[in-house]
Amino acid sequence: MEGNVMNGAESLVRTLVNGGVDTCFTNPGTSEMHFCAALDKVDGMRCILGLFEGVVTGAADGYGRMKDAPAATLLHTGPGLGNGLANLHNARKARTPIVNIVGEHATYHIAHDAPLTADIEGIAWPVSDWVRTSADAVSVAPDGAAAIAAARTPPGQIATLVLPADTAWNDAEGPSPVPRVPAPQRVDEDRIRACRDVLTSGEPVLILLGGRALRADAAELAGRIAERTGALLMSEFAGARTERGAGRVNPERMPYVVDVALAATAGIRHVVLVGAKMPVAFFAYPGKPSLLVPETARPVELAGVADDVVDGLERLADELGAMGCEPRREAAKRPDLGSGDLDIHKIAAAIGHLMPEGCIVSDEAITSGRMLHPYTSGCPHHDWLFGTGGSIGRAVPEATGAAVACPDRKVLCLTGDGSALYTVQALWTQAREQLDVVTVVYANRTYAILHTELLNVGATPGPKAHDMFDLDRPEIDWVEMSHSMGVEASRADTAEEFNEALAAGFATPGPFLIEARI
Amino acid sequence: MEGNVMNGAESLVRTLVNGGVDTCFTNPGTSEMHFCAALDKVDGMRCILGLFEGVVTGAADGYGRMKDAPAATLLHTGPGLGNGLANLHNARKARTPIVNIVGEHATYHIAHDAPLTADIEGIAWPVSDWVRTSADAVSVAPDGAAAIAAARTPPGQIATLVLPADTAWNDAEGPSPVPRVPAPQRVDEDRIRACRDVLTSGEPVLILLGGRALRADAAELAGRIAERTGALLMSEFAGARTERGAGRVNPERMPYVVDVALAATAGIRHVVLVGAKMPVAFFAYPGKPSLLVPETARPVELAGVADDVVDGLERLADELGAMGCEPRREAAKRPDLGSGDLDIHKIAAAIGHLMPEGCIVSDEAITSGRMLHPYTSGCPHHDWLFGTGGSIGRAVPEATGAAVACPDRKVLCLTGDGSALYTVQALWTQAREQLDVVTVVYANRTYAILHTELLNVGATPGPKAHDMFDLDRPEIDWVEMSHSMGVEASRADTAEEFNEALAAGFATPGPFLIEARI
Repeated sequence: MEGNVMNGAESLVRTLVNGGVDTCFTNPGTSEMHFCAALDKVDGMRCILGLFEGVVTGAADGYGRMKDAPAATLLHTGPGLGNGLANLHNARKARTPIVNIVGEHATYHIAHDAPLTADIEGIAWPVSDWVRTSADAVSVAPDGAAAIAAARTPPGQIATLVLPADTAWNDAEGPSPVPRVPAPQRVDEDRIRACRDVLTSGEPVLILLGGRALRADAAELAGRIAERTGALLMSEFAGARTERGAGRVNPERMPYVVDVALAATAGIRHVVLVGAKMPVAFFAYPGKPSLLVPETARPVELAGVADDVVDGLERLADELGAMGCEPRREAAKRPDLGSGDLDIHKIAAAIGHLMPEGCIVSDEAITSGRMLHPYTSGCPHHDWLFGTGGSIGRAVPEATGAAVACPDRKVLCLTGDGSALYTVQALWTQAREQLDVVTVVYANRTYAILHTELLNVGATPGPKAHDMFDLDRPEIDWVEMSHSMGVEASRADTAEEFNEALAAGFATPGPFLIEARI
Repeated sequence: MEGNVMNGAESLVRTLVNGGVDTCFTNPGTSEMHFCAALDKVDGMRCILGLFEGVVTGAADGYGRMKDAPAATLLHTGPGLGNGLANLHNARKARTPIVNIVGEHATYHIAHDAPLTADIEGIAWPVSDWVRTSADAVSVAPDGAAAIAAARTPPGQIATLVLPADTAWNDAEGPSPVPRVPAPQRVDEDRIRACRDVLTSGEPVLILLGGRALRADAAELAGRIAERTGALLMSEFAGARTERGAGRVNPERMPYVVDVALAATAGIRHVVLVGAKMPVAFFAYPGKPSLLVPETARPVELAGVADDVVDGLERLADELGAMGCEPRREAAKRPDLGSGDLDIHKIAAAIGHLMPEGCIVSDEAITSGRMLHPYTSGCPHHDWLFGTGGSIGRAVPEATGAAVACPDRKVLCLTGDGSALYTVQALWTQAREQLDVVTVVYANRTYAILHTELLNVGATPGPKAHDMFDLDRPEIDWVEMSHSMGVEASRADTAEEFNEALAAGFATPGPFLIEARI
């Protein structure tokens, strides 16, 4: 293209493709038309339409978690970004790399306060690590390259580039190369020694894994250290991506319920943090502490989220003479299938019995899913994705993006009915792209968590309060909902029906939904 | 309750109810549990559950537009507010009064960066006129009262109150009275004279009505002035609430398409602004101006959005000797019903033929709806609600809220299929509350507007670009979608089927959806 005229939009698409960003989840509007037009001029960009921006950003999160590389999103002005905000919040807490492209009015049009005029940067900042608005067409390519570099900066960041329409349609100079991205930082010798000291102090230590430390290589090293020192090994409650399964080190998750967590960590004096921070309760409750370790426990950070956790763990293991220790590995085992009326344990048993190797589990089962781990820990190798930001409406889009990232792997989406309703439009994208996702909707017809949370915060429930948590008036028909968007579905009231449906879903390519009535 | 212990949440609910805010659209989470619990202690608050926050805020917009008074929303932390952002953007541009209550972590919990921790005020400001975070439980009632006053301040504002969980559960002192709200400002004599001068200058004048000036009393006065002076009378393209129908003055809307608008306003030298601002194109297009009047046209503001437009128009009419002039009123007339294959004109004819008196039309038909006005202008009195902020996903929630506000009136929701998919969960709330809403989905299986916008911005369309605008792979089954959420529905391929379905929808109480295949 050198020597030919290229507009800003095309220079950006070429910059993205050259820079390895070849997947774009989109919900475009008028201000993004030139970007869309450029797709037909540039090879190598796969664009995937979502019918709502929460689908778009959630899919980019799932994609980025599985690829360890950014997808782009294409969003329409401030409100479009706003619609994608909750899943960007989740993605940011997961440290997922994402490049958001947000169309804006032409620079000269903004002063006139057209209907869609909004403070886009103001909306972007609370969920972004990097925000820039391109000033003119020739800046679009270097700004796009800077956005890619920002997204890739360890541990992964949300970069939001705002593109006024005239910067897209005016003449540009061509694509820009992506600046060099820093590698994860090497852990200081001081930290290794400090961790060694507490781990050899004889006092009770918790090693808490988070972020990159939840991958198999890091967990294995941590397992050796725990074995050598007798430390308690746990993972944060909500990890972005945990590599699990038979033969691997599968640390227990930090429990959700404050009292249960405090019982699990009772007596702990030191917390060695590996890609994690001090464990905090999802919510505050009257009279209960915020942190999930004893008040007297002190943190010692081995590696922060942007640090080279594997190298840090290796050196610590060396220092402790732990490299020769065999960690506690999960034994290969699968539970038996259940029968009779369906409940959450029989669902978990079916998942554990049937889950194929390489499965990606996007877990937003909330209350229904807290007991899944023991049923699945001995399954063949798989990845488990949790809600790092606590905002519901994540799993159905996330599963969609994970399936795009890993077309050769089966994705299992586990979602509460309340959660699935937030971003249910993702099913349509699964049908359109024929993605290999099995969605299990735990249809308990309630925001189950809120009934217990109401008691946990010490509030006295009455009928009007409970009425705000129940989804049974009317009941959602998930089979019809799924069919309406082109995804095959079936309903299961018994374990036998569920077992059969799940087996069929795993065996058949393309999307499938199971309404699991519990 | 004086003398008894009351927590912050209860003091807020009592403040809201005492202050006339007796309807709350909710999607609560853990941080809002005490507010929910207080609903059972305080009489007079109607809480309505939405399954997604865009439904909640859109319903509050529809409610506020019809009531001229605020509903409250109850939203869960930053991401919950984020999910409601687009429809708050629309509401803010409509000058709709809304009181948002956003739950936040307990004050002492925020520092620990729990998963849902976010910059709530940062998310709120781009769509709010007033934002405050309560510091402690005793501040909650006065803060709530201040929020009500802010929401009611002319012309209507978005007030967002952030409520840390401990300010809700700690002891408070009781409800607070709402501070006095300023009345709409009286228009200066200078402005009256300036408008009189241009209207009697002999030069072509456009009188542009917006905001409060779109109600029948103001439009009638403007009609007298136009009749007396020969001025061109128009309304802004997207009015928040226009009172229309036979016997009323129904000004032409400013056209959407730039060239059409410029042809309509050709030769205009002065623009008398009444609750409106200079008309601006929805989007900028290469080589076209942003404003929809000749470059040489000069604005003269009679009344701003917060001013007393009716008093201003009355005094201007007096000054011009126009009070005795009979304005051009719409004659009572209804179009005939169409037959054969369904198209947008036959849909419009059916609406014009069948619309009941007092109907509230929530219009997000986009490209399919631009010709609706001539078919309906001679119908019995009705209200028409447009998209003031340009963000789609508005009408289904807005219709829901309008039906809550006006239970004795029929609501007609006109929506594109692309738009409806954003916030389709509102159908469930319509079923749950048995709201009297007929929804017409213009099922053209495409973001139709984008095909023309692609050409308007001078982009060259190719197959990949077009693929991002089409919703036909797979097609949405709107009847199944509607049934899945408990709303009766039917499909119309012919005008006869549509006519019958619309007549049935108007005749039967409760929600009903028509998939109009065009």
